[in-house]
Amino acid sequence: MIHSGAIIGAGIPQFQSITFKKLKSRYDFFRTDRDKRDFVSGGAAAGVAAAFGAPIGGVLFSLEEGCSFWNQKLTWRTFFCSMSATFTLNFFLSGLDDNAWGSFYSPGLINFGVFQCTEEHKTNGSCRLWTAIDLFIFILMGLIGGLLGAIFNHLNKRLTIHRMKHVNTKHFRVKILEALLVAMVTTTVAFVAAMTLGNCKPVPTRLINQTTPNIEDTVRTYFCKDGYYNDMATLFFNSQEEAIKQLFHQEGQFSLQSLSIFFICFFLLACWTYGTQVPSGLFVPCLLCGAAYGRFVSTLLINVIGYDKGIYSGTYSLIGAAAFLGGVVRMTISLTVILIESTNEISYGLPLMLTLMVAKWSGDFFNEGLYDIHIHLKGVPLLEWDTPEGMHKLLARNIMSTDLQFIFSRTRVAVIQRLLKTTRHNAYPVVSITNRGDVSNFSVNQNYDDNEELDPTQIEQTGQVRVMKFEGLILRSQLTTLLKNNIYYEEQSMVSSQPNINYKTLTADYPRYPDIVDIRNDDINNMKFILDVRPYMNTTPYIVYQDTPVPQVFHLFRSMGLRHLPVLDHYGQIHGIITRHNLTHEFLEERQHELNEMEDLTLFRRMHE
Amino acid sequence: MIHSGAIIGAGIPQFQSITFKKLKSRYDFFRTDRDKRDFVSGGAAAGVAAAFGAPIGGVLFSLEEGCSFWNQKLTWRTFFCSMSATFTLNFFLSGLDDNAWGSFYSPGLINFGVFQCTEEHKTNGSCRLWTAIDLFIFILMGLIGGLLGAIFNHLNKRLTIHRMKHVNTKHFRVKILEALLVAMVTTTVAFVAAMTLGNCKPVPTRLINQTTPNIEDTVRTYFCKDGYYNDMATLFFNSQEEAIKQLFHQEGQFSLQSLSIFFICFFLLACWTYGTQVPSGLFVPCLLCGAAYGRFVSTLLINVIGYDKGIYSGTYSLIGAAAFLGGVVRMTISLTVILIESTNEISYGLPLMLTLMVAKWSGDFFNEGLYDIHIHLKGVPLLEWDTPEGMHKLLARNIMSTDLQFIFSRTRVAVIQRLLKTTRHNAYPVVSITNRGDVSNFSVNQNYDDNEELDPTQIEQTGQVRVMKFEGLILRSQLTTLLKNNIYYEEQSMVSSQPNINYKTLTADYPRYPDIVDIRNDDINNMKFILDVRPYMNTTPYIVYQDTPVPQVFHLFRSMGLRHLPVLDHYGQIHGIITRHNLTHEFLEERQHELNEMEDLTLFRRMHE
Repeated sequence: MIHSGAIIGAGIPQFQSITFKKLKSRYDFFRTDRDKRDFVSGGAAAGVAAAFGAPIGGVLFSLEEGCSFWNQKLTWRTFFCSMSATFTLNFFLSGLDDNAWGSFYSPGLINFGVFQCTEEHKTNGSCRLWTAIDLFIFILMGLIGGLLGAIFNHLNKRLTIHRMKHVNTKHFRVKILEALLVAMVTTTVAFVAAMTLGNCKPVPTRLINQTTPNIEDTVRTYFCKDGYYNDMATLFFNSQEEAIKQLFHQEGQFSLQSLSIFFICFFLLACWTYGTQVPSGLFVPCLLCGAAYGRFVSTLLINVIGYDKGIYSGTYSLIGAAAFLGGVVRMTISLTVILIESTNEISYGLPLMLTLMVAKWSGDFFNEGLYDIHIHLKGVPLLEWDTPEGMHKLLARNIMSTDLQFIFSRTRVAVIQRLLKTTRHNAYPVVSITNRGDVSNFSVNQNYDDNEELDPTQIEQTGQVRVMKFEGLILRSQLTTLLKNNIYYEEQSMVSSQPNINYKTLTADYPRYPDIVDIRNDDINNMKFILDVRPYMNTTPYIVYQDTPVPQVFHLFRSMGLRHLPVLDHYGQIHGIITRHNLTHEFLEERQHELNEMEDLTLFRRMHE
Repeated sequence: MIHSGAIIGAGIPQFQSITFKKLKSRYDFFRTDRDKRDFVSGGAAAGVAAAFGAPIGGVLFSLEEGCSFWNQKLTWRTFFCSMSATFTLNFFLSGLDDNAWGSFYSPGLINFGVFQCTEEHKTNGSCRLWTAIDLFIFILMGLIGGLLGAIFNHLNKRLTIHRMKHVNTKHFRVKILEALLVAMVTTTVAFVAAMTLGNCKPVPTRLINQTTPNIEDTVRTYFCKDGYYNDMATLFFNSQEEAIKQLFHQEGQFSLQSLSIFFICFFLLACWTYGTQVPSGLFVPCLLCGAAYGRFVSTLLINVIGYDKGIYSGTYSLIGAAAFLGGVVRMTISLTVILIESTNEISYGLPLMLTLMVAKWSGDFFNEGLYDIHIHLKGVPLLEWDTPEGMHKLLARNIMSTDLQFIFSRTRVAVIQRLLKTTRHNAYPVVSITNRGDVSNFSVNQNYDDNEELDPTQIEQTGQVRVMKFEGLILRSQLTTLLKNNIYYEEQSMVSSQPNINYKTLTADYPRYPDIVDIRNDDINNMKFILDVRPYMNTTPYIVYQDTPVPQVFHLFRSMGLRHLPVLDHYGQIHGIITRHNLTHEFLEERQHELNEMEDLTLFRRMHE
């Protein structure tokens, strides 16, 4: 749901399709990266909201996991988006399933049922799903859950690396075969386990709550005699959601043996499945696995240890599910809210939050969350929430990339073309070369000479006889599109003779801008054509000084959602550019040795905040 | 609760007290403005959380209303803070009230009771608090609620202005008298209204729900014969919370007459009370007022119009409360969540959000929210969420303040002292004057001359023969503290002979830094002492170019929580400074005439985002 929500968010507002050329509207306002990012976060939030009936949780999920950039305006929009998603779903579900149009019964696709107090948990009239003493056990469960999650992540990481080496490189049939193998093994395990290791338990007569359908439909008799059910089979042969409900609300017993065996099998199968070439989720399997773990704990406490101060085993299953899922994905605030909303039980706030925080801490002690692991394996430069510890002495000059390729406000088309062909940068700083003090514009001619002998490294060496005065930024996509549309003028003619181009034409090809090699146009090899980028370049990007501490750079970069951040000195001269790649944790950590040992002045900076 | 939460947040982390000099710890890490701001938002969130038992709502309230700066790290911290607040309260309340320690029954101080379905609202087994048809009525109610809120705000604004003129200026006895007058009038109105206009209704036998105590305790007989109760008196002579509960859950009738009279009286009284010299809230009175309005609508629909498709009048009261409160304070997302959490009924999400949005829109059509009104009357430069419409053509150069007072990296103490005495700025740009190209440092002597003839305006006039190269920012507080601690060196000696000062000493006086006039020290009048600010100034503040569009400036300023933003040209020369005052809506709107009519290039900038 999250994934498809994000896809819809990325696709719909474009009002065009690259696959279906026919679908193309003239409305191109949203065809920018920033808007696309925002819509994707909205879509992801809506996905969560619809799946769990958790609109607020969806927003927080999108905030905590999804987007690396966030602004306040986005909060409200995303909230509205996920709210609408929840209630649209709710409207149609209640209409179609219960045929009660206009009433809103079923908030989400996944429904954990109502946590109702059975008689023995009622104390003076009001419900008692958990007590303060339970909290300590929950913390312990969170600790173990984090541990289990860490193991899960470790195994899955090894597996994924192996897959990337041996499976994904092969013919696609291999991938299909793997998926088939997984399916076969899963089924076999389920059948055998249920057949040989399942226990027969009497079916409890009383229904637990109204949300679960008639309990005879959900428990599986499976070779047991009438009035009995096979607990293992009940877990394996129901939909995962149904199985979770069973563990949450089923009054009948699950034997410790069945629970542990089920946990181990399911743990390994889920770990193996995640990453195969099938759209398989992570949330629900982990919840189921964890619910078994939680139910195991409660059963242990009640039956074996005999500690029974009105333990409500449903709560324990829920906490177990949270602990394990939290140990795998390491979410805290958003997962808390999602579970609160999907159980519709606000009083679970504290235990859930405690458990999830402990689970995160104990898990982070060993490795990082599964999402992050896969993001890093895929090599996506996603910015973390914050810089690693002790970075405040590392300066912008230490991490900026200095292999700059300049262009001038007016440059020969041929030069630009060569630049675009020989480099892969997405943005080029526009500079003007002045011997300090010379403010006059250069003649086109001089400009051209400058281009010929332009070599940043050399400039560094020759002790800055000349200043690279920073004028602005121009994007590769802009340059190629300008060349493609013949936006340039001839050397002898006036600058004003350069044709204009409007935003619409400039962004017509978004997001697939033309590649320079695809531009068949003899003019761009001709030395006498000149491009004036001044009308199109960004003359006022955010900039930082060389000595800016990395945390400050990171904060700016992340909050503003930047792509390229020029690094200047106090003379307005550019020395480097910082991109997302320069701010990933890997990169920062390998630059740590450059930490300059000067006395730390950032403390004084705190006074300025 | 919100206010006291904020106060605690501002006070405790300082580990010192200005009132009680004795209380002073050596732990001064949090003694910065940024940390104080963060703690205040946390405290406010905790306040809301404790009051309504709404931890998530508290966070969102703090985000939407409280802080003008926000970063993601703060989200999680605030959430943790408010969660703990809720459950600490919950723990002790359930312990002390119900004497059930370790169980968590009463989430918040204010408890709206449980919205339970009575029989006639049950359709095929599950509850039906509202239907799709109701939504349209809710939207209408939101519209009217916004209107009522606008009237409330208008009256209260007029009243507050009058108060500021005539009451607050007078002796404090006058304020007390006003408060007493309010109290007297309120009591009189309540008694008279209940006595003359109240109706006697039969006491409903069945209790509505368990959360409300025995209903005989909360209904007021008041001159009615036994078995009957006076509806007006029941509203007036209960605690507001109790009265709200009555309107939400009381099965017995309230006559249209009583409801309308109560609404009008309470509306006017609340409007008069808010702003007197007593710590009176706004939330609960508005909720009560709105609840009466909502109950009025439902009674009207059922009894008069006869539209009764299983209307649950509790829902209508709630929606009415939301509509009116939303119309007054114009909160949307946070109020939605607060009410969801305090009613513990997630299915109210959509109706509440719809109503609140409509209320906000209809209210904003007339005037702004009550909080904003009072903020503006107090003249606090609080930054809105976003710039007004159509500001994208206004540039930084149009709004920056250009009356700059420079100092140099090394300046005569006497000059600084004069500067501090003659100006009120909180930060001073440190510049070095160079004829472009001259990179060499100046001798102290030349430096001194520069000071003497330093006059920014003149520099503007003389066509910039010299460059004001921007070196960094130094704070007034830093300068005064440095002077107070005799941090300077004698002209003939070396720079290195200037004594050092560490962060602890520099911030020892936070937040009450010494005033320049209080510094009794003859040296600082002596022309031969020189202060070198370089070790203490912020050499890498965020900066913007002159042509940066105001929305971009605003976005940077807000997200980064800036105080002073230097405006530079591409030569690294400073031309002005932007502070919060330059970004308030009032200021921006009066600068709108300077909108430069150049062709709008910001569209192209969108490609860079």
